[in-house]
Amino acid sequence: MDIDALLTSAAINTGLSVLLFSLYSILRKQPSNSIVYFGRRLASLNNRNSRNHFSFERFVPSPSWIVKAWETTENEILAIGGLDAVVFQRTLVFSIRVFSIAAVMCLFLVLPVNYYGQEMKHKHIHAESLNVFTIANVKEGSRWLWAHCLTLYIISCSACVLLYFEYKSITKMRLAHITTSPPNPSHFTILVRSIPYSVGESYSNSVKKFFTDYYSSSYLSHQIVYRCGLVQKLMVDAEKICTKIKAVPNGQPSLKPCCLCGGSTSFKVLTDEPESVKDSFSYSNLNLATRDNERSAAFVIFKTRYAAVIATQMLQSPNPMSWVTELAPEPHDVLWSNLCIPFRQLWLRKIVTLLASVVFMVLFLAPVTFVQGLTQLEKLSQTFPFLRGFLKQDLINHVLTGYLPSVILMLFLYTVPPTMMLFSSVEGPVSRSGRKRSACLKILYFTIWNVFFVNHVSGGFLFAFNMLSSVGDIPVELAKAIPNQASFFVTYVLTSGWASLSCEVMQPFSLLCNFLKKHLRRNHEDSSDGLVSFPYHTEIPRVLLFGLIGFTYSVMAPLILPFLLIYFLLAYLVYRNQVVNVYIRKYESGGQLWPIVHNTTIFSLVLTQMIAIGVFGIKKSPIASGFTIPLIICTLLFNEYCRQRFSPIFKKNVAQVLIEMDRRDEQSGRMEEIHQQMHSAYCQLPLTSHEFCESVHKLCQDNIRGQEDTKPGKEPSEVSEPCAVCNFGKEDNIRE
Amino acid sequence: MDIDALLTSAAINTGLSVLLFSLYSILRKQPSNSIVYFGRRLASLNNRNSRNHFSFERFVPSPSWIVKAWETTENEILAIGGLDAVVFQRTLVFSIRVFSIAAVMCLFLVLPVNYYGQEMKHKHIHAESLNVFTIANVKEGSRWLWAHCLTLYIISCSACVLLYFEYKSITKMRLAHITTSPPNPSHFTILVRSIPYSVGESYSNSVKKFFTDYYSSSYLSHQIVYRCGLVQKLMVDAEKICTKIKAVPNGQPSLKPCCLCGGSTSFKVLTDEPESVKDSFSYSNLNLATRDNERSAAFVIFKTRYAAVIATQMLQSPNPMSWVTELAPEPHDVLWSNLCIPFRQLWLRKIVTLLASVVFMVLFLAPVTFVQGLTQLEKLSQTFPFLRGFLKQDLINHVLTGYLPSVILMLFLYTVPPTMMLFSSVEGPVSRSGRKRSACLKILYFTIWNVFFVNHVSGGFLFAFNMLSSVGDIPVELAKAIPNQASFFVTYVLTSGWASLSCEVMQPFSLLCNFLKKHLRRNHEDSSDGLVSFPYHTEIPRVLLFGLIGFTYSVMAPLILPFLLIYFLLAYLVYRNQVVNVYIRKYESGGQLWPIVHNTTIFSLVLTQMIAIGVFGIKKSPIASGFTIPLIICTLLFNEYCRQRFSPIFKKNVAQVLIEMDRRDEQSGRMEEIHQQMHSAYCQLPLTSHEFCESVHKLCQDNIRGQEDTKPGKEPSEVSEPCAVCNFGKEDNIRE
Repeated sequence: MDIDALLTSAAINTGLSVLLFSLYSILRKQPSNSIVYFGRRLASLNNRNSRNHFSFERFVPSPSWIVKAWETTENEILAIGGLDAVVFQRTLVFSIRVFSIAAVMCLFLVLPVNYYGQEMKHKHIHAESLNVFTIANVKEGSRWLWAHCLTLYIISCSACVLLYFEYKSITKMRLAHITTSPPNPSHFTILVRSIPYSVGESYSNSVKKFFTDYYSSSYLSHQIVYRCGLVQKLMVDAEKICTKIKAVPNGQPSLKPCCLCGGSTSFKVLTDEPESVKDSFSYSNLNLATRDNERSAAFVIFKTRYAAVIATQMLQSPNPMSWVTELAPEPHDVLWSNLCIPFRQLWLRKIVTLLASVVFMVLFLAPVTFVQGLTQLEKLSQTFPFLRGFLKQDLINHVLTGYLPSVILMLFLYTVPPTMMLFSSVEGPVSRSGRKRSACLKILYFTIWNVFFVNHVSGGFLFAFNMLSSVGDIPVELAKAIPNQASFFVTYVLTSGWASLSCEVMQPFSLLCNFLKKHLRRNHEDSSDGLVSFPYHTEIPRVLLFGLIGFTYSVMAPLILPFLLIYFLLAYLVYRNQVVNVYIRKYESGGQLWPIVHNTTIFSLVLTQMIAIGVFGIKKSPIASGFTIPLIICTLLFNEYCRQRFSPIFKKNVAQVLIEMDRRDEQSGRMEEIHQQMHSAYCQLPLTSHEFCESVHKLCQDNIRGQEDTKPGKEPSEVSEPCAVCNFGKEDNIRE
Repeated sequence: MDIDALLTSAAINTGLSVLLFSLYSILRKQPSNSIVYFGRRLASLNNRNSRNHFSFERFVPSPSWIVKAWETTENEILAIGGLDAVVFQRTLVFSIRVFSIAAVMCLFLVLPVNYYGQEMKHKHIHAESLNVFTIANVKEGSRWLWAHCLTLYIISCSACVLLYFEYKSITKMRLAHITTSPPNPSHFTILVRSIPYSVGESYSNSVKKFFTDYYSSSYLSHQIVYRCGLVQKLMVDAEKICTKIKAVPNGQPSLKPCCLCGGSTSFKVLTDEPESVKDSFSYSNLNLATRDNERSAAFVIFKTRYAAVIATQMLQSPNPMSWVTELAPEPHDVLWSNLCIPFRQLWLRKIVTLLASVVFMVLFLAPVTFVQGLTQLEKLSQTFPFLRGFLKQDLINHVLTGYLPSVILMLFLYTVPPTMMLFSSVEGPVSRSGRKRSACLKILYFTIWNVFFVNHVSGGFLFAFNMLSSVGDIPVELAKAIPNQASFFVTYVLTSGWASLSCEVMQPFSLLCNFLKKHLRRNHEDSSDGLVSFPYHTEIPRVLLFGLIGFTYSVMAPLILPFLLIYFLLAYLVYRNQVVNVYIRKYESGGQLWPIVHNTTIFSLVLTQMIAIGVFGIKKSPIASGFTIPLIICTLLFNEYCRQRFSPIFKKNVAQVLIEMDRRDEQSGRMEEIHQQMHSAYCQLPLTSHEFCESVHKLCQDNIRGQEDTKPGKEPSEVSEPCAVCNFGKEDNIRE
């Protein structure tokens, strides 16, 4: 690939990005899209007015959202998106900082050294191959390799220093997050699993007996987990209620036409008799809290935070596989379905999903190899001879080498997050945030392996497989491959990076759903069903992959750095905008994502240094190679220090902090009040009934709206006031 | 190597073993050696009579010690040697059981298949090469390989079943050991390290403040750790006392001649004036408990066991590198010198010792490669042509191939334990048992790598180094090498195995020391200085190495199994004898060694299975290879299950058990009494002063004896009654 092809690719992508960002700035002004682009804000305000007043400004693109995103402070992000959002922002800030330093060093020191590395007649700059700008152009045994070595030192040191301060400040924020948060049920509650079965005694009694016996001074109450088939039971009951609704005596069954199929729905309109429905809507016949429905898991609530943490840290019973305790996730974070999984299955499930993920990673190599083939036009025209004439055209050539491979790779990559999320669900985590973190790690390994490693190995599929068996050769293989693969990764940053940001800001899927809902299903109401939380599990691996590419290519092929910096700057703005406007916060992991970011960055640094040793070796500069080895050792020692100094805070709660929080609450006399709240915090039944209630409410609304459509002059009712039929809307109605 | 050479080797070793065991049975009857062979028994009885009455029986070898060892029950072993000794015995019992099964299967099924594996004319059995009995003799693609596969299944399954029951019973024993033991100070005490420095406040005050603040209900007292230079200070004081002793007014300085050098020692004889010495011997002028001598570590004693465990499990402070807590080792187990190491150094020390161990392992390859050369006579005669005539003699040939290589390897291996022990000391463990465990692991890795792996790699030194970089090739390499290296390992079992047991039972080093002491230094008194605790760190790796050799060779070269079984049976008897008679128990790890044994056995099994896959692949039997893969998976799953089910008990104390122990003590009203004992349990000063006292006592004894030598008719004083000068001997005076 030459500079022309690169510029083509850059032009296409810049144009596309500008177009999409402009389109976004128009679309976001349309009131009908407000639920797509301001979902979080609407959900928090419960205010959906200012509709439909037409103005010309609405159709002029403006950069106001960029200004707003820029002006948002970190405290606002913390208040809106929680600590996780701040951690994500800090990841981007760290990347911008470190790659700014790298860009300055590489563009002003390394790039000229590369360009004038060999005595050759340089072509016109347009036709110059990208290879001329990489380390491949430096003569063997050149003295100028010290420039690369020095740059590597500066990048590594600045990365470590920045990482240290980030880790330190995020640790502080995490502690502050714990101390300043309002009384959190998850601090007082533990999750007990694998309660031993004893004949003639319910699990509930066993729990009560055990904890009143061994934790008599601190045990408050407990809440047993019930069978998951419960939801099915509720669905059956819902059906029963439906039949009752249909059978309301004085309702004239009027059929509402469906705009999709032109036929008629089977919903019959309900007359205004909420009382009759309310009567039928009782839980008396559910009677769920029976012995048979109990599962061997329970939430146990303690009087103090400290007591709860003690109970999680101890090995309770001589059989380590019974009475297993862990800190409970936040109530909104609980994955009730996984709580019913017997604890003894968990280790097997973990192994099975690990194997499944590995198999998935290996099978995925096939499309990647195909993509790899596309970047080498000769190969392609050999495989498909009839394409030869077509491929000779310049534009086609540029598009094919500069754009298409990345797009195909990207499309394939879209199947990965749902698959990994599925694997993580099967694994059996008890919290949504835990599931997301597990999926995040899986996607991260997947991305680094499939996008980074496999693309660098010239032999493709089979060769990559062989590589696994000879781990020692990987750095040398990479050292050979990296200067040659620079063009692929520059275009990868342009397409996958920039385009993914445009895509992120546009939210094409939500937009489409919203459009279909409003124009085909004629549902003009903005429901908050579509609101989702921030997809950390897809975005963090993406950002970290670009970090890895940035580190490894910085010294080898510095031309990638400006594009990468633009990516990170755009990402910074886009994700701020999204955190403030689009995504809601349902649960928090309290900054648990930072250790993943830290470890991956250290991995990237060490890999870069190892590749540099390989490249210096190929370039026959043993001094530069030798000088790089202490750098690896120092980086690893730095990582070990951080692991000792900071990471325990992310794994355990601090006794001192918890004791002081407990004391403060006790002194202020709020403890009683907190205990009152705790009793109902983890209640499986109300939450499920809430879901049930919501579906019944929808049914009501649909029917009421059907009636109202026939009565002109009446505005459709807003969700902001509770529904008269089922009382729905009284509580916060945000869910996944 | 042929059967003749093997028989030569076996004959030499059997003869040698019989000779040494007979010699042992005579030597042990000599009263002068009683301290060598009955050290533990004498120390426990404090009874050293029945000397010197001559009888003829004393010079007739007898097998009575074998009978006694055999008759010792497990409960006796538990009472005498503690749980660790029982774990070691169980390891041997497990090995005997599993290799009995293996021997039956292999000798009656696999051996005939190997022997008749190829259509060939068999030589006379004497001249048959050992290779004929290995799997190398089976035809490629032979259907009889199912016999090997089946045997592998039976061995693996029986090993897993036996391992499971052993792990279960040892876990039970560990719990029983905790519950039934008398109140142990280590259960009530935690070790706090890295106490933060605060200006104007002593560490002692900081500790008191912190624990009375956060653990007010359970904190009892604490004991700060003082500077290790203390011992130096005491030495200076000892010198001062020496000068005082010299300056006793009415003593006639008489010089005692030394029998070694013929010259005179500088010790001057003290007249009987103990009171004057006693006066000078006071701690009033030591004044050690000052601010400057304090180190940032302390033992904190709690009122209950449960409270102590809670304090160790919690993360105390927002800075995870200060107020670091762990359970205290038993008082006798404390390594005081390592307590002074600043906590912040520990992670660096660990990394440095890890690197040092790896370097040591790599450098050690050189002698092993040389040894490897000796087994191939052709190589040797090529290197040293002048030896050619010499090497052609049959006996020399047999000795060289059958005996010498192992002896050389063994001699080199004797340098390993002290080196690894040194590394483990530098690492900074706070307990002797921890240091021993760490050394045990290091020696285990070392032995498996240097004895097992490197010997199997035909290319020796450099090749073994290359192997590290291509981990995937190891099983294939081993599969090629194992049938050929059978002769080496059979002789290794004979020499290193059998001879090491004779050596163990003879205790040549102690015997020599005792002899020198009695006959050259004319010290006829049995002091308990030479008593050592069981060297688990050398013996467990040895037994596990033989286990590994047994598993890997069982199916491939079954001829090794009878020799191995004899080794394990002998080891069972010898170590029982040693536990009962020789080694004293100073401290206990409470069965912490079993997880090492378990994991190594699983490693051996999986390695065996992987090698089997390689061999079946070489023999072109894909079905047998395929059938072995599920076996590996099942073995790994079994290991994972055991890790979940049992290993937490070996890492954490069980809350339920501790709470019940506390309750029992409280109900019986013994708690007050226990608290009284606890106050002085961890006192650095008395222990050190005890050492000091001991050295002063020695000085006294030497001088008194010098005097007495000149006065005929007076028996030398026994240690059993306390010394009149320094009161030494009042307490238990056993130390390492």
